[in-house]
Amino acid sequence: MTTTDIIFLDIPAVLPVPFSPNTWKVRLALNYKKLTYVTRWVETTDIASVCTSLGIPPTSTLPDGTPKYTLPALIDNTTSPPALLSDSTPIIEYLERTYRDPDSSRALCVPASRALHALFEYHVAHSITAQLLPVMVMHMHDKKTPRDRVHFRKRTEAAFGKKLEDIELRGKEREEQWKKIEGAFDLLARLMKAGGTTGELFTGSNLSLADCILGGLLLAFRYISPDEAWIKVSAWNDGKWMRCMAVLEEWTAVV
Amino acid sequence: MTTTDIIFLDIPAVLPVPFSPNTWKVRLALNYKKLTYVTRWVETTDIASVCTSLGIPPTSTLPDGTPKYTLPALIDNTTSPPALLSDSTPIIEYLERTYRDPDSSRALCVPASRALHALFEYHVAHSITAQLLPVMVMHMHDKKTPRDRVHFRKRTEAAFGKKLEDIELRGKEREEQWKKIEGAFDLLARLMKAGGTTGELFTGSNLSLADCILGGLLLAFRYISPDEAWIKVSAWNDGKWMRCMAVLEEWTAVV
Repeated sequence: MTTTDIIFLDIPAVLPVPFSPNTWKVRLALNYKKLTYVTRWVETTDIASVCTSLGIPPTSTLPDGTPKYTLPALIDNTTSPPALLSDSTPIIEYLERTYRDPDSSRALCVPASRALHALFEYHVAHSITAQLLPVMVMHMHDKKTPRDRVHFRKRTEAAFGKKLEDIELRGKEREEQWKKIEGAFDLLARLMKAGGTTGELFTGSNLSLADCILGGLLLAFRYISPDEAWIKVSAWNDGKWMRCMAVLEEWTAVV
Repeated sequence: MTTTDIIFLDIPAVLPVPFSPNTWKVRLALNYKKLTYVTRWVETTDIASVCTSLGIPPTSTLPDGTPKYTLPALIDNTTSPPALLSDSTPIIEYLERTYRDPDSSRALCVPASRALHALFEYHVAHSITAQLLPVMVMHMHDKKTPRDRVHFRKRTEAAFGKKLEDIELRGKEREEQWKKIEGAFDLLARLMKAGGTTGELFTGSNLSLADCILGGLLLAFRYISPDEAWIKVSAWNDGKWMRCMAVLEEWTAVV
């Protein structure tokens, strides 16, 4: 363990564990790197006000020009002045730079592979993450805290111009959407095979930035939709993603 | 230089240099790894018969069930029995295994990044290579040897069910196709920026499998279509791909 004075900002759920793929992505990295940290739980409803008051930078700009704040965020009071960070990949890159593992084979992302990891992130965002809302929106809603449910419904319905219940696909359309997502996982499995990957993680047996991205998604499936998404995903590719989850387990402590 | 007894099979052109992106991909790797080799030039028309007689394996199966032979191929007589290889990525992986650079930072592809490189290959094949025929088919035809022109026309027209001249897009459609290809290059530039890549190559300053793939494509643009494709590509992203070509130059000797 490396003792630090890190505060990690994550989103609470009605579950005993968080469920955001992006905060899980950073939590996996913190745990893998054996850094001590405390979690500050911030409901989605409060993200903007909390981040503004703490001086954490926004991650993008909303269509109306106001700054958009998202979690994960991280404050590292180990250093002076403290580091104030947002956005999962920059946070992981910061942790990697600041708390470098003396064993280089344990690096989450070496400089020479950063653009390849950026491609992985782009690819997963488009082929998987962007496809999830129509099959997971009600599951997501139901796992949120009561206050966040109201906030989530308002924001999402405004963005889509329809009720949450009408964003959710049903019947044949729902199965087709799942087939599309299954196809994206198939492709990842084929790429691992083509790359001769040994081990259950995308890049082998040590965790990498790519594995944090994929692992965050798998954990989101498991906690947001254990009775549908996770049942499906864990059966795909002969149980490959369940075996991946078993390897990730080591880095899933919520502290 | 590492002395080897490698025979590298490449496709001749009417130009003094080859123009296949896939053979360039391997030639870049051979030159980067400073391996001695001789080139055996095999016209496309003769690939199947030459590979069959030499015992080089096919790379896939044609729709009618017969084996499909493609170049690059490589025979390594340094070892006993000789290694007989086809398909660019397996050839590069063989070279990497067999002629490992003592400096690990010069590796073309470390095991932990193989699946990421497979993703890069998949991504470039779909977003760039698969888009090229409608804007390059006549340029490709014209750069082939007289015998190969006949073979190329016959095979391509049979596959598409139309004349080469009708596969080629013109006017507005052609410009739209080029816009699509430009978009794919824009994305690669954005990923390099997101990854904080230092240097002109996709993975930094040393060559990698990804750079052999991208470099092979850039060289194909330059030699197949110097008066259209290369003029366009070299102007995109503020000359980024021309600077990349300048770095690649060191490994482009044709021996």
